[in-house]
Amino acid sequence: MKIALAQLNYHIGNFEANTAKIIDAVNEAKTQAADLIVFTELCICGYPSRDFLEFREFIGLCEDAAQKVAAACTDIACIIGIPTYNNKPQGKELSNSAYFIENGKVRAVVNKALLPNYDVFDEYRYFEPETEFSCIDFKGHRIALTICEDLWNTFENPLYVVRPMDKLIEEKPDVMINIAASPFSYMHDEERIQILKDNAIRYDLPLFYVNTIGAHTELLFDGGSLVFDKAGNVVDEMPYFEEKIAYYTLNDDSSITPNQPVTLMEKRQSNIEQIYQGIKLGIKDYFTKSGFSKAILGLSGGIDSAVVCALAAEALGPENVMAVLLPSRFSTDHSVKDAQDLVDNLGCKSELIAIKDITQAFETALSPQFSGLPFNIAEENIQARSRAVLLMAMSNKFGYILLNTSNKSEAAVGYGTLYGDMCGGISILGDVYKSQVFELARYINREREIIPENTIVKPPSAELRPDQKDSDSLPDYDVLDKILKEYIEHRCSSTEIIKMGYDETLVRKVLRLVNISEHKRYQTPPILRVSPKAFGMGRRMPLVGKYLS
Amino acid sequence: MKIALAQLNYHIGNFEANTAKIIDAVNEAKTQAADLIVFTELCICGYPSRDFLEFREFIGLCEDAAQKVAAACTDIACIIGIPTYNNKPQGKELSNSAYFIENGKVRAVVNKALLPNYDVFDEYRYFEPETEFSCIDFKGHRIALTICEDLWNTFENPLYVVRPMDKLIEEKPDVMINIAASPFSYMHDEERIQILKDNAIRYDLPLFYVNTIGAHTELLFDGGSLVFDKAGNVVDEMPYFEEKIAYYTLNDDSSITPNQPVTLMEKRQSNIEQIYQGIKLGIKDYFTKSGFSKAILGLSGGIDSAVVCALAAEALGPENVMAVLLPSRFSTDHSVKDAQDLVDNLGCKSELIAIKDITQAFETALSPQFSGLPFNIAEENIQARSRAVLLMAMSNKFGYILLNTSNKSEAAVGYGTLYGDMCGGISILGDVYKSQVFELARYINREREIIPENTIVKPPSAELRPDQKDSDSLPDYDVLDKILKEYIEHRCSSTEIIKMGYDETLVRKVLRLVNISEHKRYQTPPILRVSPKAFGMGRRMPLVGKYLS
Repeated sequence: MKIALAQLNYHIGNFEANTAKIIDAVNEAKTQAADLIVFTELCICGYPSRDFLEFREFIGLCEDAAQKVAAACTDIACIIGIPTYNNKPQGKELSNSAYFIENGKVRAVVNKALLPNYDVFDEYRYFEPETEFSCIDFKGHRIALTICEDLWNTFENPLYVVRPMDKLIEEKPDVMINIAASPFSYMHDEERIQILKDNAIRYDLPLFYVNTIGAHTELLFDGGSLVFDKAGNVVDEMPYFEEKIAYYTLNDDSSITPNQPVTLMEKRQSNIEQIYQGIKLGIKDYFTKSGFSKAILGLSGGIDSAVVCALAAEALGPENVMAVLLPSRFSTDHSVKDAQDLVDNLGCKSELIAIKDITQAFETALSPQFSGLPFNIAEENIQARSRAVLLMAMSNKFGYILLNTSNKSEAAVGYGTLYGDMCGGISILGDVYKSQVFELARYINREREIIPENTIVKPPSAELRPDQKDSDSLPDYDVLDKILKEYIEHRCSSTEIIKMGYDETLVRKVLRLVNISEHKRYQTPPILRVSPKAFGMGRRMPLVGKYLS
Repeated sequence: MKIALAQLNYHIGNFEANTAKIIDAVNEAKTQAADLIVFTELCICGYPSRDFLEFREFIGLCEDAAQKVAAACTDIACIIGIPTYNNKPQGKELSNSAYFIENGKVRAVVNKALLPNYDVFDEYRYFEPETEFSCIDFKGHRIALTICEDLWNTFENPLYVVRPMDKLIEEKPDVMINIAASPFSYMHDEERIQILKDNAIRYDLPLFYVNTIGAHTELLFDGGSLVFDKAGNVVDEMPYFEEKIAYYTLNDDSSITPNQPVTLMEKRQSNIEQIYQGIKLGIKDYFTKSGFSKAILGLSGGIDSAVVCALAAEALGPENVMAVLLPSRFSTDHSVKDAQDLVDNLGCKSELIAIKDITQAFETALSPQFSGLPFNIAEENIQARSRAVLLMAMSNKFGYILLNTSNKSEAAVGYGTLYGDMCGGISILGDVYKSQVFELARYINREREIIPENTIVKPPSAELRPDQKDSDSLPDYDVLDKILKEYIEHRCSSTEIIKMGYDETLVRKVLRLVNISEHKRYQTPPILRVSPKAFGMGRRMPLVGKYLS
């Protein structure tokens, strides 16, 4: 049996484009004499379609699209992912399903049993979990077909009570196929390989795993589809963040012969390489799929906006990136020069708009109210917000999308101005700690100096008051980031973090800053998710509540 | 058996305050010689505690608090709601539990089986559903204790496969108790009574239902706890949006004798009365529970900000409300006069800050870029955003919380400026359609003219360009609101709405406006939820996706 794995990029709700892409792949696989082509979880509509799934019209269009795909499936079988109506009298309206299509007809429907509902996942919001399982016979093989999380119930620490493969194995399948939409994070690839390998070994079966690629607002999908033999050895690892269709022959002895050169990685990509690739695709897909092409951002001369500018130029082309230099009376000359050098290095467009007269107009207007009161955060924020008004005016006038340049460390401790530098259509670095931003800058400069060295080495500053430095109010980023990771990603308490050896006053201060900033993060743009725990849909904290630290 | 129902207002994560309140109620019930006092779902920590539940420290503090409550329970039993660790080897970490406490000890633990995960609910994110059930014997009675949704599985259209009462009834209980945290919407009270009545009749048992009150950011809880006899008659209906402890004697023949005058409503409150009460509590609790007391808002002379100002003055006291008049060159004289009249009627504080020089400074700064281009939405938004910068500067300087004044109709069609009038710490009217805002204004004026008549009768306008009216770009609000309701609340397609008799062009335009505004709503403040389908956590639409209309 010759199997094609289609690792493709879909667009949520774009039935016309998704169907065309699937049918093109079916036709290509036919020319390669494949017996079966396997697409990814919910490929018909894109994943995650979120509350689109609550619209009857949407589910109807999924079925219409599936029928078009079925009509193309002559002389080849295919597996597609699709939401279907739950056929039982109780339970939620939908199932997260796979259609096995043969001879132009849906021959079997497999429903997902294990529905992830943690972190960024909300599948139990829509779908009823399946409780009955059976294999599919095809071309002399018996296929145990499952959907993503169905193989994700770890053997040591099971999150779910049932395990579909424990039922399916009773029917003595000779191959496992798993279709997935498994989002990227920089530590996910190795975990994924391990979990799938464990399944191959435990059930003593070869395993074809096909994952989607592409970005859907904040969620990135990295592909990296995998083929294992029944001993759990990796036969092939498909590329990351790229579309590909690959072919394999499943022999009668359960061994697998790839039909093209395999791309086994000699060593894993570093976290920073993965983050770089992920963000690049995240920006590109955000623009392409929302029908925009041009980005705008405020360029301060600091490292965050420099890295965002370089990433945007790489993803969209420098000609589509407008960098606006917005110096205030507190901006240093070298900041403007560093920003200008970056623009020159990248070849993107730029404008310079001084904000001094604007902030002056605000302060004059407010002088009756503010009379006699010292300059403080109110005036600092006026500067950041004046910049946002200018950037949004440019955006409104010329159709740019504003890129947010805050990093995860700042977003965590609320070191940013709501409706000021926290604005934007999409946050590029909101899941990248400041210490990782430095690594990204070095990675961007790996072949030539794109980001000026001075931008990288100078002490970070918001330049909202004279001689301000981040280190005036925040600990060193190296320490800060480690404490943040323990709190945000590992959900440790202050007591636990202090026990690790961090200074008590510092830990309490940092956790308190994170907690009192929840209201700010609530109103910030979606953040490209690159870590296992990003701000946004994956972290749902109360706004009004008494925090422990 | 004498039963006390404690309908109280908790603060999420405030273990000290919640425990003290519970123990006070226990002590009061002891003086009334109650045998059992029943508190609400997850009262120990507040509902919804959201991702607080993922912190081990938080769960530990819940248990500590429960032990303090237990120590107070001598000569009385009590039922409290608490998250506990799931005691099975598989499944999610936690259960949503009720402790039955007697003689200072936890005598029984009941876990919730039906975990709502639709609309605003995320319970399956945290909790493992229970599959085993048993009754609790106490003082010669056998109690079937369930938690909120456990009784909510409607008999005609079951959302869940199991029904805990179908198991519990086999043990022949003689009374049902249900502890709840069931959020308010203006149509929820009658549905609640009907569903609970159906349970009493079906199982032929008296039913004590106790619900929490209070607001937790966007979610409002209205109380309205209920007591039914076994024929399904309402014995008592506790007040809405008020704390109360009420006492009932459950007689040996299963009849119920209230120990205080009952408050059966002669007629249901109107939707607008309910919304008014809900929003008032929503504002009050938002401020109290976040430790703030003073509100600020921009007062335009229009109806939305007038209604918000009146509601805030009612909830916080007029002395805690600062109304800022921010006329632009397009503001009419009558707008300023209407705003000033309202301030005088309410007795709140006010300031007037003209924005003309500020918008002029922005336009001057942008003149090199905007040269030769016509005045359009870019300049309109500069006005709205300049106002936001001023209001936020006042907020930063003096510690006010900015109230957002957008209504649901505007929020739906994106008729508002992101980072401008869409700013605020909390949105007061974001779940109130414009046509309901008019009703609210009339209701606020029910005894005397608070909101100037002119504010109510003049045609709505954003006053961002000369002679602008909402009706220039939007249909009449009466029609608009009906179309919005079909789309947002009933998830009808354009085809279905057109079939209802609405103009096709209009329907397509409205739905398109809703769809292209998702990115704006993503960044707006939490909205006090008064309807069954509010924007925010209860409606999770893709940002980048191809919409159908």
